[in-house]
Amino acid sequence: MTKQPILINGRWDNEPSPLTFTPVNPSTGESFSDQYPISTLDTLKKMADYASGAAETLNHCSPDLIARFLESHAANIDQRRNEIAQVAHLETGLPYQPRLHETEMNRTIDQLRRTADCVRSRDWMTARIDTRLNLRSMYEPLGGAVLIIGPNNFPLAYNAIAGGDFAAAIAAGNPVIAKAHPLHPVTTRLLAECAHDAVLTLGLPGSTVQMFYQCEPDDGLAMIKLPQISSVGFTGSQRVGLELKRAADETGTPIYLELSSINPIFLLPAALEERCVEIANMIADSMLAGSGQQCTCPGMIVIPAGDLALAFSEQLSKRLSEAPPQVMLSADGVQGLHDSVQHLLHHGAEQLVGGHPISDAHAKYANTLLRIDASRYLQQPATMQREMFGVAAFIVVCQHDEQMIDIARTLEGNLTGTIHQGKNGQDKEQSARLTRALRPRVGRLIHNGVPTGVSVNPATVHGGPFPATGHPGFTAVGMPTSIHRFAALRCYDRVREGSLPPELRDANPTGTMRRFVDGEWTTGDAMPN
Amino acid sequence: MTKQPILINGRWDNEPSPLTFTPVNPSTGESFSDQYPISTLDTLKKMADYASGAAETLNHCSPDLIARFLESHAANIDQRRNEIAQVAHLETGLPYQPRLHETEMNRTIDQLRRTADCVRSRDWMTARIDTRLNLRSMYEPLGGAVLIIGPNNFPLAYNAIAGGDFAAAIAAGNPVIAKAHPLHPVTTRLLAECAHDAVLTLGLPGSTVQMFYQCEPDDGLAMIKLPQISSVGFTGSQRVGLELKRAADETGTPIYLELSSINPIFLLPAALEERCVEIANMIADSMLAGSGQQCTCPGMIVIPAGDLALAFSEQLSKRLSEAPPQVMLSADGVQGLHDSVQHLLHHGAEQLVGGHPISDAHAKYANTLLRIDASRYLQQPATMQREMFGVAAFIVVCQHDEQMIDIARTLEGNLTGTIHQGKNGQDKEQSARLTRALRPRVGRLIHNGVPTGVSVNPATVHGGPFPATGHPGFTAVGMPTSIHRFAALRCYDRVREGSLPPELRDANPTGTMRRFVDGEWTTGDAMPN
Repeated sequence: MTKQPILINGRWDNEPSPLTFTPVNPSTGESFSDQYPISTLDTLKKMADYASGAAETLNHCSPDLIARFLESHAANIDQRRNEIAQVAHLETGLPYQPRLHETEMNRTIDQLRRTADCVRSRDWMTARIDTRLNLRSMYEPLGGAVLIIGPNNFPLAYNAIAGGDFAAAIAAGNPVIAKAHPLHPVTTRLLAECAHDAVLTLGLPGSTVQMFYQCEPDDGLAMIKLPQISSVGFTGSQRVGLELKRAADETGTPIYLELSSINPIFLLPAALEERCVEIANMIADSMLAGSGQQCTCPGMIVIPAGDLALAFSEQLSKRLSEAPPQVMLSADGVQGLHDSVQHLLHHGAEQLVGGHPISDAHAKYANTLLRIDASRYLQQPATMQREMFGVAAFIVVCQHDEQMIDIARTLEGNLTGTIHQGKNGQDKEQSARLTRALRPRVGRLIHNGVPTGVSVNPATVHGGPFPATGHPGFTAVGMPTSIHRFAALRCYDRVREGSLPPELRDANPTGTMRRFVDGEWTTGDAMPN
Repeated sequence: MTKQPILINGRWDNEPSPLTFTPVNPSTGESFSDQYPISTLDTLKKMADYASGAAETLNHCSPDLIARFLESHAANIDQRRNEIAQVAHLETGLPYQPRLHETEMNRTIDQLRRTADCVRSRDWMTARIDTRLNLRSMYEPLGGAVLIIGPNNFPLAYNAIAGGDFAAAIAAGNPVIAKAHPLHPVTTRLLAECAHDAVLTLGLPGSTVQMFYQCEPDDGLAMIKLPQISSVGFTGSQRVGLELKRAADETGTPIYLELSSINPIFLLPAALEERCVEIANMIADSMLAGSGQQCTCPGMIVIPAGDLALAFSEQLSKRLSEAPPQVMLSADGVQGLHDSVQHLLHHGAEQLVGGHPISDAHAKYANTLLRIDASRYLQQPATMQREMFGVAAFIVVCQHDEQMIDIARTLEGNLTGTIHQGKNGQDKEQSARLTRALRPRVGRLIHNGVPTGVSVNPATVHGGPFPATGHPGFTAVGMPTSIHRFAALRCYDRVREGSLPPELRDANPTGTMRRFVDGEWTTGDAMPN
């Protein structure tokens, strides 16, 4: 067995720690051939120091060079598409085709390229100039390293060294220390090779990107508190995320979390009357995507009681029963899902389908649907808002309209919330009331759709109130806004032209950059009198 | 003695708590005639509930109405200018003329009016529309109350019910619960009357603005954790600010802090050669402004050793000795300043002038200048970075250029940092190195000026890295950016036109609002195909 090196200080180097782990193929339960190191705090500190050095150089790096890095990284990934998707498939059990090889791969590559466009336009910097006072400000790199901790469920598009957080942190001009998710170290190693090759090709500082695989939890918390770590991006479980947040909060380090979400879906009576089966099928498809291991997977469906509720439940149950259970990311994930299902059953939910692991598989769980009455739910809304990470949801059956509103009002912060309405607006008032109750509790409000499928688009918000994320004013997806998470707002007061960043000098640096000059947005030069 | 009521649920009402405090005139040490209540947690909870109700109405309030509220509030203050400035003078000891009656009053009124302009333009909402996907997003009110905790040092411009944080929180459409600073309750009461009158005149929900004077520290921390409190704005000491932050962090409540700052000033040799006396005079004026009780007051001056260092120190000492000690905000403030001076003397600083309270005054402290060698400073940079809140600074004398860079590199986060250079760029390289070291550690970088005097301007940043503030990506002054602190980023995914906020519908709501529609910034309508 080979022990794989880590990417540190511009090269692939041995991690001196004797501790290692070996990834497992969740489809078979068999171990991979290589060992991956568990890094020591000493290594993490060194990485932070190296990144600090890179930060000073990157701060004065041209946007064009950073954009070319992102494009070169994207091209490297594209060239190794088959190999990377194959490995990701073996490590995660997610389908090779179309999910990994096409859908997620294209999204990852496209996201890097679009980020490069944003970097070139420089609009994200939001440069503001007052020539009369000679006062100028804009968003800039943070001055230290950004630690990105990738999740288990999107081995490519959210990967710590290729995904959205990585792209945003690099776009703002920060060096990144990526922590691979230990469920897909091989995929992350290949993506790190792509990034490292791009760094070398473009002559960027070696420590612009570094990567380690794993560390002891306490060492991770200690790393976050290092002064060289300027910000942290984390996507993962609420439990781990809140621990990281506590550490970051102690040292005033901005941390951006994308945590769990139950993504409630409300079906108004008119919608059920019109499209009962259609909606059940839409929700089934949404739940089944990516074996339900998505942060926007529907986890709770609120419906009015009656015959149609029964028909809806039956159709959704049928679809979930018919669909073969998919391989999950790990046996631990199966156990976690089972614990959540048991928790809800224990608190009064009844089981419609599923509710057990698949015994002859290493990591499969029966597609699951639970049901609970609204009155029972409303006795314990906090207890019931438990994410089931997998193909699993619970239906809440309401006896009257007011219960839907009450349920909306007791929701914790969620990434998304969905309402299905009648097509002709016959339930306009009811829908408007529900929308008002739901609106402040979710980041993305959806009408007549499903929450899965987050577009990489300037108008997207992949965020929401705590505890879905750590701050309601940011988004993890959607350029250029997502870049602001990893930037500092800085001002230059009567600073001489030569010491100004190019974007704040009188001459517009590109001729196309939008700047707010003396009260107007303009692509022209600033003209001091 | 009359016990003053608090402003709660749209009226002035008795606070049932028997606990009160009585403000003191710091110029004379005499008590004012009225008592002000110390509110109970029960009252604070009620305020939070009332504010929650107001939030739902405000969320659907037209920007024009909010703008008119801000303007009406400004007009009310203007009309009572003499009375308010007179009371503020008696409570704070700050000069009636020009400071309170003109400078700070005009700034306060102007800030409210400019905020109203921002509200009307709606540009701060940063509306983004993708018509192809029918995906729309913008900044919106948070959905609950914003708690604003005002500081002691700007009784008008940073007042919790009239200052910049208040204006920004209202601008975003949030109800505000203002906590008066107990050193100027009378001023705050008058300003609250102005705000309350404007609420009544315009028919806004009564709980749009509420105000209390004081509470027990633990009750304040408990209030911050209430689910109805969506965000907190605090300006004040680092000790109190970090306690509030810990409480807010526990519940994931965004908190914006503006804490202490020593505002370092670096004098390069060429600047001293050219303008030694001129710079000493500039710094003296900056230190003496507002009896030094300003968050941007110069607290540390780094100079090269030599004859000019001596001349500079002598001139600054002369100016500080000659200027009469000013009334400070309170006897506690005098004690706090003395503690800080003693702390620095204990750790190796020597006293050039001042260093003691004025014995025959209730709240005056001798203008103070200390001095320390750079080598001594660099042995204990964390210990030496102690804010002296008053007319007091310390000079750090460097034996060589490298020490200046080292000092810059050991700085904690500050609101400002200043460099004085030679006029002809003879020290260009040295200045550039120092600028690079200083830049990531301060919010506003100044060349050849002084840190006091923060312009209310879109290009200003009154912010900086932790612990000067709680987040490096925001500013407390400067519309429209300061509004984003109190806003949530929210997305509408295929939401029907009727449920969209006016700013995200196809038709541009004003014909002038800038929106990002299908890849372009435009003031036109969105045109779905």
